[in-house]
Amino acid sequence: MSDTGFLIREIESFFVGGRDVTLSGLPVERRRMAQGGPPRLVDPNGDVVTGQMYAQLYRQMRPASPLPVLLWHGGGMSGACWETTPDGRPGWLSLLLRRGFDVCVSDAVERGRASWSRYPEIYAEAPVFRTKDEAWVQFRIGPEGGYAHAAAARVAFAPTLFPVEAFDGFAAQFVPRWSGHEAMTQAAYDALVARIGACVLVAHSQGCAFALQAAARAPALVRAVVLLEPSGAPQDAPIGGPPVLVIWGDNIETSALWQRYRATAEAYLGRLRDAGRAVDVIDLPARGVRGNSHFLMMDRNSAEIAAMVGGWVAESVG
Amino acid sequence: MSDTGFLIREIESFFVGGRDVTLSGLPVERRRMAQGGPPRLVDPNGDVVTGQMYAQLYRQMRPASPLPVLLWHGGGMSGACWETTPDGRPGWLSLLLRRGFDVCVSDAVERGRASWSRYPEIYAEAPVFRTKDEAWVQFRIGPEGGYAHAAAARVAFAPTLFPVEAFDGFAAQFVPRWSGHEAMTQAAYDALVARIGACVLVAHSQGCAFALQAAARAPALVRAVVLLEPSGAPQDAPIGGPPVLVIWGDNIETSALWQRYRATAEAYLGRLRDAGRAVDVIDLPARGVRGNSHFLMMDRNSAEIAAMVGGWVAESVG
Repeated sequence: MSDTGFLIREIESFFVGGRDVTLSGLPVERRRMAQGGPPRLVDPNGDVVTGQMYAQLYRQMRPASPLPVLLWHGGGMSGACWETTPDGRPGWLSLLLRRGFDVCVSDAVERGRASWSRYPEIYAEAPVFRTKDEAWVQFRIGPEGGYAHAAAARVAFAPTLFPVEAFDGFAAQFVPRWSGHEAMTQAAYDALVARIGACVLVAHSQGCAFALQAAARAPALVRAVVLLEPSGAPQDAPIGGPPVLVIWGDNIETSALWQRYRATAEAYLGRLRDAGRAVDVIDLPARGVRGNSHFLMMDRNSAEIAAMVGGWVAESVG
Repeated sequence: MSDTGFLIREIESFFVGGRDVTLSGLPVERRRMAQGGPPRLVDPNGDVVTGQMYAQLYRQMRPASPLPVLLWHGGGMSGACWETTPDGRPGWLSLLLRRGFDVCVSDAVERGRASWSRYPEIYAEAPVFRTKDEAWVQFRIGPEGGYAHAAAARVAFAPTLFPVEAFDGFAAQFVPRWSGHEAMTQAAYDALVARIGACVLVAHSQGCAFALQAAARAPALVRAVVLLEPSGAPQDAPIGGPPVLVIWGDNIETSALWQRYRATAEAYLGRLRDAGRAVDVIDLPARGVRGNSHFLMMDRNSAEIAAMVGGWVAESVG
């Protein structure tokens, strides 16, 4: 809650990307689909849409910038990660709206409201479901082996800035994800950028490689890119694009996985620098800020980090 | 787009309901989860959350009513169905915000941002995916056999008020759903009502039975219920509750399925009336409004129907 609101002109949502698939030869089932109603025949054969993504665009009456900020989530998450934090503080959606930006929150292909497609008929295989056990370690809330079913028995990094008391509520956000869908997801993100037009991308984790690729493909539209803890980078060579800001949290040195992920991202960013691109880095622990997890936009200092991002964007895009 | 905006105090999102399940004995997989990174071991065993739902609550600075309106979607849909219509007009989220209501849009268990759980380990079976072919007929956009892959070859009811030119975009909204999950979904909706407090429910199709049950269980909180084309009704006896408004579209007499669904709903509503409850009915074709589909909130006269609903709510809850 806040004393000052924001004047919204319109909340638009839409789906972009995707294509039709026509299914045939699948058995017709008899299932009860309506409460209190009789079972009915359900024929799964016919046309379905696959590969689409979902976006929700908040347009203000008097935006402070002509460039909307697009918030792109990471793996196993939906756009909900940018909304209210698990412990109930305003998320980056609200914080960036209050700073005067138009903001677009999206769900990538397969995630959240974007929907997903049946396997093995359309997707090749089953998805991956993230456990709390894995999240606790991979999101660097606590050390390897630090998760326990009982909240009181969990071991977090000391200090940690993740709101650990809300970790169980946070885990309710996890959505299944697939591997090997990068080209499909990238195509939808590219379609999103084409639809929105000139914009700023703020991406987290898995979303960062999509943002770098989108910027390389549409350098006239993507005016700045902010990467929160990129977990990877595109395979292709950088071919131009806007200034980039990268932000890293704490305890990366405790994780072999995160050291590899960071090395992949930094190799790509080094090639960007070699190509003359502006790449700024905020290494939070090197600045004396200790305890940030992988979820910088949910940590207790998320508002301060949002302010850093907002300031950098305002400087970078004028 | 509109000339007049709305002043938002806060956009809050949260997850309610659900419980932990601890998985064990599943094989560890080796999969590449980050772009450009190496494959890693993925252990699906551990704690996961199941049965939760997602909600997004728009609070205005100066709401015209103390009662937020909760919009509950139907089967195979997410909360996105209440946002911008497939042909780009403001959805009921925006229309009700402009009328001064606080509004809550939610994704029921298994749908959209609420996430879903693996089967057969947690859910008993595979989901049902809706085809365009089925949707065209079951949503009463056109007659049995009226769908064709090529848009130009489709046969719609004459007249139809569904924006048929946007039907393919509409189909991008469809999400998988399960059967037999009513108790789990109802528990999450009951938790949502308990969290929000005094409220008005506006439900569509499958969502209507959940709304009637929620109203029966929490008559002190649910102050009015609007049912858009209910596809069913609770199994339990009505035990009190608020005034109800039911709205029906056109061409129900062409569909054996819809005649059965309507009979189920009307039998329940008859029992509510027998118990002394106020049940108002708007039968659109009986009023001379022809061509409404099952998706009243997307049809070309959706703004007029929203105005009817807003007026009835204002009268009913004073």
